[in-house]
Amino acid sequence: MAIVLGPNRYGKAETRVVRVTKDGGVHRIKDCNVSVSLSGDMDEVHLTGDNAAVLPTDTQKNTVFAFAKKYGVGEIEEFALLLARHFVDSQPTIHHARVEVEEYSWERIPVEDAPHLGLRDKQHSFVRGGTEVRTALVHSDGSDGDESVVSGLKNLVVLNSTGSEFYGYIEDEYTTLAPTHDRILATEVTAQWRHRGTDSSWGRSYRDARRCLLEAFAETHSLSLQQTLYQMGRRVLNERREIVEVRMAMPNKHHFVVDLSPFGMDNDNEVFFAADRPYGLIEGAVLNDDAPQVPNAWI
Amino acid sequence: MAIVLGPNRYGKAETRVVRVTKDGGVHRIKDCNVSVSLSGDMDEVHLTGDNAAVLPTDTQKNTVFAFAKKYGVGEIEEFALLLARHFVDSQPTIHHARVEVEEYSWERIPVEDAPHLGLRDKQHSFVRGGTEVRTALVHSDGSDGDESVVSGLKNLVVLNSTGSEFYGYIEDEYTTLAPTHDRILATEVTAQWRHRGTDSSWGRSYRDARRCLLEAFAETHSLSLQQTLYQMGRRVLNERREIVEVRMAMPNKHHFVVDLSPFGMDNDNEVFFAADRPYGLIEGAVLNDDAPQVPNAWI
Amino acid sequence: MAIVLGPNRYGKAETRVVRVTKDGGVHRIKDCNVSVSLSGDMDEVHLTGDNAAVLPTDTQKNTVFAFAKKYGVGEIEEFALLLARHFVDSQPTIHHARVEVEEYSWERIPVEDAPHLGLRDKQHSFVRGGTEVRTALVHSDGSDGDESVVSGLKNLVVLNSTGSEFYGYIEDEYTTLAPTHDRILATEVTAQWRHRGTDSSWGRSYRDARRCLLEAFAETHSLSLQQTLYQMGRRVLNERREIVEVRMAMPNKHHFVVDLSPFGMDNDNEVFFAADRPYGLIEGAVLNDDAPQVPNAWI
Amino acid sequence: MAIVLGPNRYGKAETRVVRVTKDGGVHRIKDCNVSVSLSGDMDEVHLTGDNAAVLPTDTQKNTVFAFAKKYGVGEIEEFALLLARHFVDSQPTIHHARVEVEEYSWERIPVEDAPHLGLRDKQHSFVRGGTEVRTALVHSDGSDGDESVVSGLKNLVVLNSTGSEFYGYIEDEYTTLAPTHDRILATEVTAQWRHRGTDSSWGRSYRDARRCLLEAFAETHSLSLQQTLYQMGRRVLNERREIVEVRMAMPNKHHFVVDLSPFGMDNDNEVFFAADRPYGLIEGAVLNDDAPQVPNAWI
Repeated sequence: MAIVLGPNRYGKAETRVVRVTKDGGVHRIKDCNVSVSLSGDMDEVHLTGDNAAVLPTDTQKNTVFAFAKKYGVGEIEEFALLLARHFVDSQPTIHHARVEVEEYSWERIPVEDAPHLGLRDKQHSFVRGGTEVRTALVHSDGSDGDESVVSGLKNLVVLNSTGSEFYGYIEDEYTTLAPTHDRILATEVTAQWRHRGTDSSWGRSYRDARRCLLEAFAETHSLSLQQTLYQMGRRVLNERREIVEVRMAMPNKHHFVVDLSPFGMDNDNEVFFAADRPYGLIEGAVLNDDAPQVPNAWI
Repeated sequence: MAIVLGPNRYGKAETRVVRVTKDGGVHRIKDCNVSVSLSGDMDEVHLTGDNAAVLPTDTQKNTVFAFAKKYGVGEIEEFALLLARHFVDSQPTIHHARVEVEEYSWERIPVEDAPHLGLRDKQHSFVRGGTEVRTALVHSDGSDGDESVVSGLKNLVVLNSTGSEFYGYIEDEYTTLAPTHDRILATEVTAQWRHRGTDSSWGRSYRDARRCLLEAFAETHSLSLQQTLYQMGRRVLNERREIVEVRMAMPNKHHFVVDLSPFGMDNDNEVFFAADRPYGLIEGAVLNDDAPQVPNAWI
Repeated sequence: MAIVLGPNRYGKAETRVVRVTKDGGVHRIKDCNVSVSLSGDMDEVHLTGDNAAVLPTDTQKNTVFAFAKKYGVGEIEEFALLLARHFVDSQPTIHHARVEVEEYSWERIPVEDAPHLGLRDKQHSFVRGGTEVRTALVHSDGSDGDESVVSGLKNLVVLNSTGSEFYGYIEDEYTTLAPTHDRILATEVTAQWRHRGTDSSWGRSYRDARRCLLEAFAETHSLSLQQTLYQMGRRVLNERREIVEVRMAMPNKHHFVVDLSPFGMDNDNEVFFAADRPYGLIEGAVLNDDAPQVPNAWI
Repeated sequence: MAIVLGPNRYGKAETRVVRVTKDGGVHRIKDCNVSVSLSGDMDEVHLTGDNAAVLPTDTQKNTVFAFAKKYGVGEIEEFALLLARHFVDSQPTIHHARVEVEEYSWERIPVEDAPHLGLRDKQHSFVRGGTEVRTALVHSDGSDGDESVVSGLKNLVVLNSTGSEFYGYIEDEYTTLAPTHDRILATEVTAQWRHRGTDSSWGRSYRDARRCLLEAFAETHSLSLQQTLYQMGRRVLNERREIVEVRMAMPNKHHFVVDLSPFGMDNDNEVFFAADRPYGLIEGAVLNDDAPQVPNAWI
């Protein structure tokens, strides 16, 4: 028996980069959180502390900023690919890069009825959009090696105030739940979807995938959150052929009907208590059966 | 010297109530977080543990749910007033009520091109709106007593990518900051505004006040965040005469220009590092000079 | 009617300073979060953006670091006083300073049975202590002006698994709670205490006040959380004569007895569900009746 | 090409159970957060919403509470195994259970010099311990099937104020970092360790593994955080033969030496700025080379 080093990676996490591009007085902003993880010839640094194979995390951070200047931050999948390939291609000791990007949305502040202000010069004011965050996760063995791209979103909170049932489940000695034919179904969607290749139309693909998730959530008469999850993934795969697998984690954010009978009131699904914990948690994948399995794409 | 009881209050905090109203298949939801604090003849409960004057916090929670059913949850200022007056009017031992409500926004999920789905029946699907939270804070000595209403918002994150300067400040032995004539100005607005009376048009007043804050932020060429704050408050007071005082807390969310010169690149306000801590914090009030001072309205 | 500027202040919040002092190989660390707020002749900066009276928040941050070097960070009340007086005394436009300090505790990592390691050289390893945070809040009009010092703690989570009752309260039409003669009483104490002057023995005073709070919580047979709160404050005032007022906020972190009867089990206060929200919130002050009122000391 | 269901699981997350055991007036408490995930014959519930194979998450929650009563909550690994086996053994449609438990530590409140209080009756008062959380993660295919047990901890924050260097790393065109021979090394340890079987002495094993992590962190003169991580894992494996693999995630919580030279001060590693983001993130596994690989044990 000997003690050995197992899988490992290291990098700079959560570099908060904001990139402004200017077209005359009209500004656009990209607001991202970039996390890099590298792996390669890292035995020595673990065993003896010899850093000869190590590209410092500080340098990784600098590279994120420099690339934001040099190439701009366009679609986050593209930016992640650029960074990942750079680290592997430029460093002989680095064999694999993982780059994760979160993007926060901003909308322009509408300034009404103000021609005298020279509106064109005022296109530099923004208000943060929704709670939702767009995500990208790229793995790369270098420009000539295996690569995977996973797009996604998180913190997308949705609710159906009817059109959801739950009945016909197993009952055992610990069952107290009553079946219901009308309940609130609410969840906070974390979804990720894997692309077949590395050159999708990222922006269009994202907007469509997001729309599919929302529409399928709204249009599915739900008998279980699992069914809703499956329909959401299926819709994405049906509409976007560049996507081969969707993985979702959806907490069942329980909204309990408050018992108002002690106060002589009925409650026909009108007043709910939104509970924090515990919550149901439904996780699942939906995929094309011809899609190659790439388990490490999601990690 | 004797030890005595000072100011005190107690109540149920953060009752998470969701109220659904239905007009045929068209649903509307109000999603709120309600915190109640009561004060009154509370010497005995502190000194001896005698609860004869205490309306339990559990009962306060029940009342929130029952009132949501009985009266609906309309504008949150109105709902807070109803609750506050109820506690003081109905309980001889309660002389003062403070009710704070947070409201989370929801938008309908757009379902396109789907007449065959019977869209009217699908108007029950929602997606959480922005990070922003609407707030109301009511104090009441009862229907016949002193009352105050403060409306507000928090988590409203805004950014100007130019149009902000900072120079001409005091320099002392600990100064290292260089003056700038072009910087990002970003903040997360917490604003509260006090109404003259207790019967404003809450919804309209809120939408206008919010619009004023956003527009003034966008339209002010800023020489300091204090100046921007003042202009924001001033705009609200100018446009909404039912509002007599605005208080704001605005962190200066620093966006530092990254020094790219070691990589042979210039950086003309294009690439920024968004820092977490420390941050500037600007707090201030703007008010009508004829407004009566009500310091406890804000606590 | 005219629009005017009301109360205001500005400063650098949450400067995270860590100060290491070395006595040979034996190190000590102070780990603090310092927030400064200044006020004074600030009309112009609000009205016109003229910064001539403004000491930048960046300079305030630098001062925190420089003072940590120059004077060390001893007791946090002392450090806060030093900083507050400096800003007011050195800047004619600054008339008032508020300095708030949080301190995070660290303990040495015990290294056992290792004389061969030269233990004296290893006295530089630390593990973060409890969740609890020590606090200080100082207001100063300068060395020659009014000053107040408030010490405190937060995130001190305590629980009595018996010795707590709740009965004899008001019952109204919204009451459903049953009285109890045995419950869990759990809370997360936020306590602040005001000193008579500005030269207490800060360290000793803090340790004793903290001990009083814990002992009074443990030793009080509680008929209400208010009673417990009062006893805790009273104990501090009785034992520490330099302290003249104690203010506390104590959420009632509900632990509900789980109904196990559907499973044929009784539950004699053995299995509890620890709820998140809503929670009771008890706030109160206990003071010496000869203590001068200084309402702004706490803000 | 067809769309198919991929890997999936569902369950009740974050059931907050507190178990009190009483030995006369002496109480002990176990405070846990339990998350269950089940998988099995779940095609139908995803494809059609038929719940016939589904044990509701509400029932899972009830089972956690009932088991806490029936068996007590002893070592969390044992409690997790009991629950996991129960779900698989009792339900033909459930083939696999994953149970994760977090345990929060409590210490007794010392009540000094109070024999007159009948101390034996007062052994029911507790104060929350450190920020650190003990964890267990169990996978089970049932009492007769494959099982894995992973113990661990998170939020263990440690710091060496010297004894850490970083030099000899790769330099490229984006390098600006200067090598250092003395720096603060601080991290927040998340560690998990896999047991060879399912019947270790959980309590003793945990305390020893934790001690090994702390001691190795303190005693390693660090040339890189990777080296420290490896030494920590190695120490655990060397001392606890029932443990076959250790996985760790350790953020490098940067403490930057503040440049005080503009103020005419040197700074010999005395004053640091504790940064929030970005941070280095080092992840790695250390294992016995004869340990069977069980990649799903960690998920």
